[in-house]
Amino acid sequence: MTVELPDVAEVRAAAARLAGVAVRTPLLNFPWLDERLGGRVFLKAEIFQRTGSFKFRGAWNRLVQLPAEARARGVVAFSSGNHAQGVAEAARLLGLPATIVMPTDAPAIKQAATRALGAEVVLYQRGRESREAIAARLAAERGATLVPAFDDPQVIAGQGTAGLEIAEDLAALGLAPDLAVICAGGGGLTAGCALALCDAFPEVAVYTAEPEACDDHRRSFISGRRERNAEEGGSICDALLSPMPGELTFAITARRCRAGFAVSDDEVRATLRLAFERLKLVLEPGGAVALAALLHRVGSLEGRVAVATLSGGNVDPELFAACLSAPAAGAG
Amino acid sequence: MTVELPDVAEVRAAAARLAGVAVRTPLLNFPWLDERLGGRVFLKAEIFQRTGSFKFRGAWNRLVQLPAEARARGVVAFSSGNHAQGVAEAARLLGLPATIVMPTDAPAIKQAATRALGAEVVLYQRGRESREAIAARLAAERGATLVPAFDDPQVIAGQGTAGLEIAEDLAALGLAPDLAVICAGGGGLTAGCALALCDAFPEVAVYTAEPEACDDHRRSFISGRRERNAEEGGSICDALLSPMPGELTFAITARRCRAGFAVSDDEVRATLRLAFERLKLVLEPGGAVALAALLHRVGSLEGRVAVATLSGGNVDPELFAACLSAPAAGAG
Repeated sequence: MTVELPDVAEVRAAAARLAGVAVRTPLLNFPWLDERLGGRVFLKAEIFQRTGSFKFRGAWNRLVQLPAEARARGVVAFSSGNHAQGVAEAARLLGLPATIVMPTDAPAIKQAATRALGAEVVLYQRGRESREAIAARLAAERGATLVPAFDDPQVIAGQGTAGLEIAEDLAALGLAPDLAVICAGGGGLTAGCALALCDAFPEVAVYTAEPEACDDHRRSFISGRRERNAEEGGSICDALLSPMPGELTFAITARRCRAGFAVSDDEVRATLRLAFERLKLVLEPGGAVALAALLHRVGSLEGRVAVATLSGGNVDPELFAACLSAPAAGAG
Repeated sequence: MTVELPDVAEVRAAAARLAGVAVRTPLLNFPWLDERLGGRVFLKAEIFQRTGSFKFRGAWNRLVQLPAEARARGVVAFSSGNHAQGVAEAARLLGLPATIVMPTDAPAIKQAATRALGAEVVLYQRGRESREAIAARLAAERGATLVPAFDDPQVIAGQGTAGLEIAEDLAALGLAPDLAVICAGGGGLTAGCALALCDAFPEVAVYTAEPEACDDHRRSFISGRRERNAEEGGSICDALLSPMPGELTFAITARRCRAGFAVSDDEVRATLRLAFERLKLVLEPGGAVALAALLHRVGSLEGRVAVATLSGGNVDPELFAACLSAPAAGAG
């Protein structure tokens, strides 16, 4: 691939494009969580971003740079739901048509929300049809621009603006993070945030967090090459079911991340419940894996400053209600 | 009563006492909500305060000023749950014993949380026993200090620090609010916030929000004297079931509030669901009435800047799950 990797200057340029459009989400601190983990824990609440996840950042940064003739022909994206909504919202605000290819098993709330934003939704069978092929065909038919979910320099730079805000907010508190744990599907958020965080804090240890069934980043960091997941699916974390790290994202994260954490679906459910009870936050499974890793995998944070991303909150009510009635399972 | 009413200087003094102890909660803005209501809406997220409601502010401001000999003998409070937890948490941090008188029908999550903070919980039958008498007896027996839930100058001043933070955050954005809607039980939060907001923004219209079954503030503002609710109870808003406005609080709010809004329990349920779906926030019924009033009672906010308090998030999981499966009922 000859595409140039984005750097922190691209992330700063993206932040200028997003100013006044994206939500500058708060970096939350909970005394209860600090006491429990023994350190200082800051949670980047991207659940409050437009459409309920960080994905709007990358989508806006990509779409707003399209030339006028490309805008008129619209955009196509494939996504299990959060990238879909991010692209649909950016397209709505810019007044251009969007077509989203979604798996039939995407949460109903995400399908409905994407349609409500004015996008056309085209469904496919996960594992039986190629979403890449469907999206590429639609884009060719319509002359539309395909907007990748993560493996794109401008998408990565857009997601990185979340990391830039984390760095600014911590610096304003006079703090430098010892570690940052970022939810990883294709690795766009991790790559972008790593660019911003490693620039601001050269000593920070950046980790990915993934579901155990899709721990491609964790294994790829160990082997040094992009490892593929055994199967698509296998976890309740619908937002994180990408088959393997992206080529561009991995070129960035492999050099900047220390390692990857993998958490079980039970740990994710317990984290959803804990976030409900103690933090008063609604997380979706994929948006909870970084906090789940802090709670269950990282060990003592005594004397340390940690950051975790809460990357999305678009959870079906039925699944959420089931998590509330489930036993606390070690997270209590 | 010869007690002197607090003024905004008392609120500022309380803010200095709370600095570094209470959470400086964010003032959240959601583009989706702005689009829906046609104005700019800011939500003060006191659900992120220690113990999940604003009550810690007043409790800390009261307890931290107790002289050493009074601290050793401990404190007594009566509360359906949020004041209980606020007092218990302040007592825990200050290392003094707390006894809380709670009704047997207080949400289990609030009883358990109060005990988990180290307080002794004494239960009473709502409507059949006098919590005031039980608490007064306990305080006399133990030489402990009774900490009122709202009708106390230092408690009012402490709650007012939430209003001070709202004023600071809006001023930093270069905005002045046209209206502010504050959840009211006994009126402590409303009184304190009105002191701060009316000082910073003399033109702001401050309103209370209450459940229809306990709309004592709304009726009291109309009649000009403290009106009593027909019965204790009658709403799912367990945090707002005070029998009537406080004497001190009403002396402050009667001069500073324009009127009161009352919302139905169905509107509250719909607001809990909307906050879950769109804002990714967990609200308890009593903590949702101000937002419910904005959504259902205030009318168009076209061109206006509005503030509402999200005063608490301590909701039983069963009730919350039931709200998620309920029909959207006009809020959709």
